[in-house]
Amino acid sequence: MSLEGRHLIDPVDFTLDELDEVFSLSERIIKKPESYIDICQGKILGTLFYEPSTRTRLSFESAMLRMGGRVLGFSDATHSSVAKGESIADTIRVLSSYADIVVMRHPKEGAPRLASQYSGITIINGGDGGHQHPTQTLTDLLTIREFKGTIGGNNVAFCGDLKFGRTVHSLIKTLSRYPNNKFILISPDELKLPEYLKNILNKSGNVEIYETNDLESVIDEIDILYMTRIQKERFFNEADYVRLKDSYILSKSKLSNSKNSMIVMHPLPRVNEISYDLDEDERAVYFKQAKFGIYARMALMALQLGVI
Amino acid sequence: MSLEGRHLIDPVDFTLDELDEVFSLSERIIKKPESYIDICQGKILGTLFYEPSTRTRLSFESAMLRMGGRVLGFSDATHSSVAKGESIADTIRVLSSYADIVVMRHPKEGAPRLASQYSGITIINGGDGGHQHPTQTLTDLLTIREFKGTIGGNNVAFCGDLKFGRTVHSLIKTLSRYPNNKFILISPDELKLPEYLKNILNKSGNVEIYETNDLESVIDEIDILYMTRIQKERFFNEADYVRLKDSYILSKSKLSNSKNSMIVMHPLPRVNEISYDLDEDERAVYFKQAKFGIYARMALMALQLGVI
Amino acid sequence: MSLEGRHLIDPVDFTLDELDEVFSLSERIIKKPESYIDICQGKILGTLFYEPSTRTRLSFESAMLRMGGRVLGFSDATHSSVAKGESIADTIRVLSSYADIVVMRHPKEGAPRLASQYSGITIINGGDGGHQHPTQTLTDLLTIREFKGTIGGNNVAFCGDLKFGRTVHSLIKTLSRYPNNKFILISPDELKLPEYLKNILNKSGNVEIYETNDLESVIDEIDILYMTRIQKERFFNEADYVRLKDSYILSKSKLSNSKNSMIVMHPLPRVNEISYDLDEDERAVYFKQAKFGIYARMALMALQLGVI
Repeated sequence: MSLEGRHLIDPVDFTLDELDEVFSLSERIIKKPESYIDICQGKILGTLFYEPSTRTRLSFESAMLRMGGRVLGFSDATHSSVAKGESIADTIRVLSSYADIVVMRHPKEGAPRLASQYSGITIINGGDGGHQHPTQTLTDLLTIREFKGTIGGNNVAFCGDLKFGRTVHSLIKTLSRYPNNKFILISPDELKLPEYLKNILNKSGNVEIYETNDLESVIDEIDILYMTRIQKERFFNEADYVRLKDSYILSKSKLSNSKNSMIVMHPLPRVNEISYDLDEDERAVYFKQAKFGIYARMALMALQLGVI
Repeated sequence: MSLEGRHLIDPVDFTLDELDEVFSLSERIIKKPESYIDICQGKILGTLFYEPSTRTRLSFESAMLRMGGRVLGFSDATHSSVAKGESIADTIRVLSSYADIVVMRHPKEGAPRLASQYSGITIINGGDGGHQHPTQTLTDLLTIREFKGTIGGNNVAFCGDLKFGRTVHSLIKTLSRYPNNKFILISPDELKLPEYLKNILNKSGNVEIYETNDLESVIDEIDILYMTRIQKERFFNEADYVRLKDSYILSKSKLSNSKNSMIVMHPLPRVNEISYDLDEDERAVYFKQAKFGIYARMALMALQLGVI
Repeated sequence: MSLEGRHLIDPVDFTLDELDEVFSLSERIIKKPESYIDICQGKILGTLFYEPSTRTRLSFESAMLRMGGRVLGFSDATHSSVAKGESIADTIRVLSSYADIVVMRHPKEGAPRLASQYSGITIINGGDGGHQHPTQTLTDLLTIREFKGTIGGNNVAFCGDLKFGRTVHSLIKTLSRYPNNKFILISPDELKLPEYLKNILNKSGNVEIYETNDLESVIDEIDILYMTRIQKERFFNEADYVRLKDSYILSKSKLSNSKNSMIVMHPLPRVNEISYDLDEDERAVYFKQAKFGIYARMALMALQLGVI
């Protein structure tokens, strides 16, 4: 069993053992990056971004360049000829000749899965609509493992918009495959975790759930505090957005009762959901988390390309 | 006589012997790509796309990267500073310092030719308006040579929009320089090959022409069936487009009387002019054709840069 | 004292000795470029262009590629996710993980300086609003040094729009730090050099100033004639633009009384402020100047990265 040639469209495509393989390699790269600077020599990453996502795209590009590979692609298909009436199947069959591995971001849910069915090369889902963003989940899990030693056995709080957040949904589902986590779900009533997801968690048998809308009442229990952005584009009217957007702003003072070992994570970009006064605090690990994203992507692509 | 430093603006810029040199090298690369992975080390390809063409751009980029070279440029000049009132002559004189070879796509016919007159480095025309697209023609000829052994001596059918198609015009003109081809021109009356092109063919003395609007009546004679897209943007009104667009859809059943050795080519992207049921058929070579495009461009640039 | 890790936001960030170090290295690269083709191997340049500037971006990219490094980034942030509500501070903290050195162009004055305060890696200002464009100034000074031997001791004429031109302001301020230059300021009354800049020049004690609106009356004195574009977007009404734009068009005939050793410089792009008939004249060095821009940027980045 190997990850060579395997697509990553949804985190469930990989077993826990396979995820572990990605994280173990990530950690070896973190410890000795100079051993990996030319393992992808001669390899080409295709970046097919049908909607812009500068951060995800550049993280993938940096990952490939740091392993000695090269990159080609497009960063926005709205002005591009690939958008003109051609099927995803045809596009990917042609682009399979241009690159050795592809990351695809697409506004339509399911597009990367469809592409993987026609592709001659490995496809990584770089985000499809409100659906999946598996390499963000890899990034999050690697960050937890780096700071907590293990991915299971933690009290993990999710705070903010738990209704619409793709990142949170994907992480919650994947974490529920690991043993002995407790999930503390902190959100306004309007933005609670959807029922279908709670059912998945309950069925997993691995997770205890606690819901609240008061962060401070639970702060002393938390090992990992995962903050999310309350996105304007998710609301139907401006008034709801304005009323709710500041409800869950994290400041240093709100953390006064936390464990010293607690970590604050955030997928970034933040707007104002974490005060700047927290940035220099040791508990704030969100910029390190962004950096781990590069290592997770290096490990993933190296394994998929079979160069390790 | 060598191709080093030679511009390619129009296929007639190269003699048949020179085209043969490109195809011979293409074939050597196809057989042993690992021998060519660093022949362009230290070389830079400039991609100057004054209008977007993702497919052509990425094919060039992949070709250069696969030879160990590097790429810089722009993919759409509409938002770019190069579009602001500066002459093509000035732009190319500056960009000549940045790269070692340039591919230029431009909406205005003649722009790449003009650029070549002021450039310090080699210019390849990546498509200029409705005019020329010589590397598509190289791709098509290489495909014919790979599947048929020789570029001359075939019954070549062109089907669909023969009036406006730049790709078809360029291929027809170049094929008419090779001996003993018969051209079967299949189109609705509204989209017939222009008279000036028929005159060129007749003058060449190399080609026999037969016109029809019924594919099935000639299918058993064809060695190479070149399908084209009926482009919406070529029509003055929607009604004409709708009436004609489906006239020449190729399906597996329409090919039942064809030779087994017949090949179906298409410059891609297709919209609906070839049914998906044909994709797995051995006669359908259009995805392989797209792949040959990379090899043709590798060979072309290697010869122009004098690295072979 | 070393330039390793030092930001370049404004030319005054570097002492004259440090500028000299950049120019000396530039000259060594010009003489023997093959010695520098892999000094940046493994290094990544991030190109963060919050507004498009194809020429500046490609000059930086070419500089990095010619030293064996690699490039990632974006060329226009208007459609980019980095533009969505995130602070410059956050963006640069994340991007610091992706690259080893960054060039930032931003429409807001001061943005690159702000970024440098949060960045883990070296920032180069690639132009911020009407404020600074220090690598253009390095390019201009290197060109003067190459053609005149020294940067001081020349009669330098600036002609055209001296009121709004960022390039000219930056060059004038920096040149005023060198000894024994005479500045001849040639412009219509509406586009004269701002008073605050004249005060800086007078305080420097290094510069003699002469103002006129008649180029031909001073042409025989000039060692360096720096032409500028009269930019349409700087005017409040079309009539003023039309009246003034052609006032300062340089033609070969206007140079008949110049010194043979005089050089004509221009930051490019030109629109019509220099006649094409001058391009082949030995005094016209503006295309060579564009080429020197690559060498200046190579030297700058090599020193900042500490690879020399």
